[in-house]
Amino acid sequence: MLLLIPGPVQTRPEVRAAAAQDYAPWDNDFRAIYASIRERVLPIAGGIPGEHATLPLQGCGHFLVEAAVRSLVPPGGKLLILRNGSYAERAVRLATEAGRIVVGIEGPDTRPVGAEAIAAALAADPAIGHVLAVHNETGSGIVNDPAVIGPVVRAAGRRLIMDSVSAFGALPFSLAEHPECDAVLFTSGKCLEGLPGIGFCVARVDRLLAPGGAGSWAFDLGDVYRHALRAGWGSFRFTPPVQALAAFGVALDLFEREGGQPARLARYAENMRVLLEGVQGLGLTPYLERRHQGPVIVTVHQPADPGFALQPFVDALKARGVLISNFHNTTAPTFRVGCIGAVTPEDMRGAVGAIGGALESLGIRRREAA
Amino acid sequence: MLLLIPGPVQTRPEVRAAAAQDYAPWDNDFRAIYASIRERVLPIAGGIPGEHATLPLQGCGHFLVEAAVRSLVPPGGKLLILRNGSYAERAVRLATEAGRIVVGIEGPDTRPVGAEAIAAALAADPAIGHVLAVHNETGSGIVNDPAVIGPVVRAAGRRLIMDSVSAFGALPFSLAEHPECDAVLFTSGKCLEGLPGIGFCVARVDRLLAPGGAGSWAFDLGDVYRHALRAGWGSFRFTPPVQALAAFGVALDLFEREGGQPARLARYAENMRVLLEGVQGLGLTPYLERRHQGPVIVTVHQPADPGFALQPFVDALKARGVLISNFHNTTAPTFRVGCIGAVTPEDMRGAVGAIGGALESLGIRRREAA
Repeated sequence: MLLLIPGPVQTRPEVRAAAAQDYAPWDNDFRAIYASIRERVLPIAGGIPGEHATLPLQGCGHFLVEAAVRSLVPPGGKLLILRNGSYAERAVRLATEAGRIVVGIEGPDTRPVGAEAIAAALAADPAIGHVLAVHNETGSGIVNDPAVIGPVVRAAGRRLIMDSVSAFGALPFSLAEHPECDAVLFTSGKCLEGLPGIGFCVARVDRLLAPGGAGSWAFDLGDVYRHALRAGWGSFRFTPPVQALAAFGVALDLFEREGGQPARLARYAENMRVLLEGVQGLGLTPYLERRHQGPVIVTVHQPADPGFALQPFVDALKARGVLISNFHNTTAPTFRVGCIGAVTPEDMRGAVGAIGGALESLGIRRREAA
Repeated sequence: MLLLIPGPVQTRPEVRAAAAQDYAPWDNDFRAIYASIRERVLPIAGGIPGEHATLPLQGCGHFLVEAAVRSLVPPGGKLLILRNGSYAERAVRLATEAGRIVVGIEGPDTRPVGAEAIAAALAADPAIGHVLAVHNETGSGIVNDPAVIGPVVRAAGRRLIMDSVSAFGALPFSLAEHPECDAVLFTSGKCLEGLPGIGFCVARVDRLLAPGGAGSWAFDLGDVYRHALRAGWGSFRFTPPVQALAAFGVALDLFEREGGQPARLARYAENMRVLLEGVQGLGLTPYLERRHQGPVIVTVHQPADPGFALQPFVDALKARGVLISNFHNTTAPTFRVGCIGAVTPEDMRGAVGAIGGALESLGIRRREAA
């Protein structure tokens, strides 16, 4: 079965094999694995030793977003969120329930928010301290480019939080080149091709709030940092998902061997191109204009044919060895195909064939957007 | 290597093998695994269908404790915590930073808090709405028995939260027999012998706070419940650690095949007996009086011999194939040996031999308490 979902992704057998062992998290042999992961993650984020730190957190991407907001934006502080997708909407809810004031720039989920709109929103409200952007919108596949957003935030003297959960390791980003950025967030099970279960925040240590500021011990990334200092960086705070951590270490080996972020981006971009052109060749309509299409996921309008329904289509694809999401997170009805994970352009050609076969088998003739 | 730590525990190969596969969390085949886990967990907690629900949460035990406090105790609400061990102290911090008012009954970490003290504390402060107790103190090995605590809480008309993270599945507990109990908390990687990465709260659904009451979307177990209802119980909220979930399903198979909680308790109790009597035979002094010794972990006073230090002892044990914690969580210096996980009395006899060998090799003659 080929997993073409935007995480947990298809992984390589070496990664999964590392999960099939027991580990003691505070054993000195395991500490070495953990310490090496923190060190190897820092340069992928463009982090500067001493200035930035890798802060791990058990759980999932949503937990990391809440933790980062709590640890960087003071209680009652105001946060501008670029609301152009379903994951941005989740950040709005996470920040709001955590007691931060959210203002949003609402945009369609089909394109990035423009620099002018961000500059205007920041100029209009001096109380906004932070901007949060979703690097790759996992709902639609658009990219909010930090090279566009960062300079606007910097010029306005505000701080940036990059939710790069489904982009990190593939789309380029460097904290060293973005001094306005307090933190970049990502998880083990997306473009770095590990198993799900751990997230990482690479943050400027001088921006972490003082103890208690997070209003949550579990989600206080400042406490993760203080714990690490106390423990000489050798110990994870609270019981970690040891199998997922060990597997992530192997995933980093493979990431480095492949050639790091540029190589991964090149492979994913080619995966996306093959898929996008393939589905267009089948008469389907991509959800995004090509210029807004990122390399992580491709969303496709559900066909107009009245015989089309998502679950039977997903089932027909699965019968052909390809697994995609059985729900959509876009304004209009779509289906979503992931281009990330241990998959190749050859796999994507196979997926296009499977999509064509599934549509044929279901008798879907009218394939333009519904 | 034999893991004798109080979680993540030694697991069986069948459990670990289930972690060496990729899974799509929202795929219908995986939903069935997940749905079956929720259903099978409920009776282990003595939950009543319709009255109680199994609420899963990514992460670790600490996350669950914070989530349960946030989801059951209203903001600014008052919570009595039985402070007789290091994990109770962590609950104090989790609840306090989450904005709940904590009052404590402080007791030594060598015995349970008595019923009279709890009754007196509740009588003295009518504002206390909830009591939180740690079922098995992972720091020391004492048991706070719900059969003692529950009736006191019930008689006082208050509510109980049982942190059963390191006890659940081995020590008996039934929500049906404890109508005063709002929730029991546990994780995948302790006495149920799965891999770490997920926790479960089995809670009375009528006691979950209204939306927003948790002050955290990520930690709102009421929202986990509402999501489950909306999704027909077929879907995990946010990306779950799929490998740990699949492995947990296999761990439940093995739990049921062994004979459930009574059989597991019997094996662990025998593990504990062999270990306890073994270390006494080596001239070492247990930390607890026998009547307060639970079956989950055994803590032992560090020997008085000036040549003893914990890390070299742990290293010497590891060289003999036995891995124990290299830190202690008790008031006095101890070492800690877990009796839980896929280990047998025969393994414990081997561990006693290894402890003896390690002490010999380090020349530790004076073995009474330091």
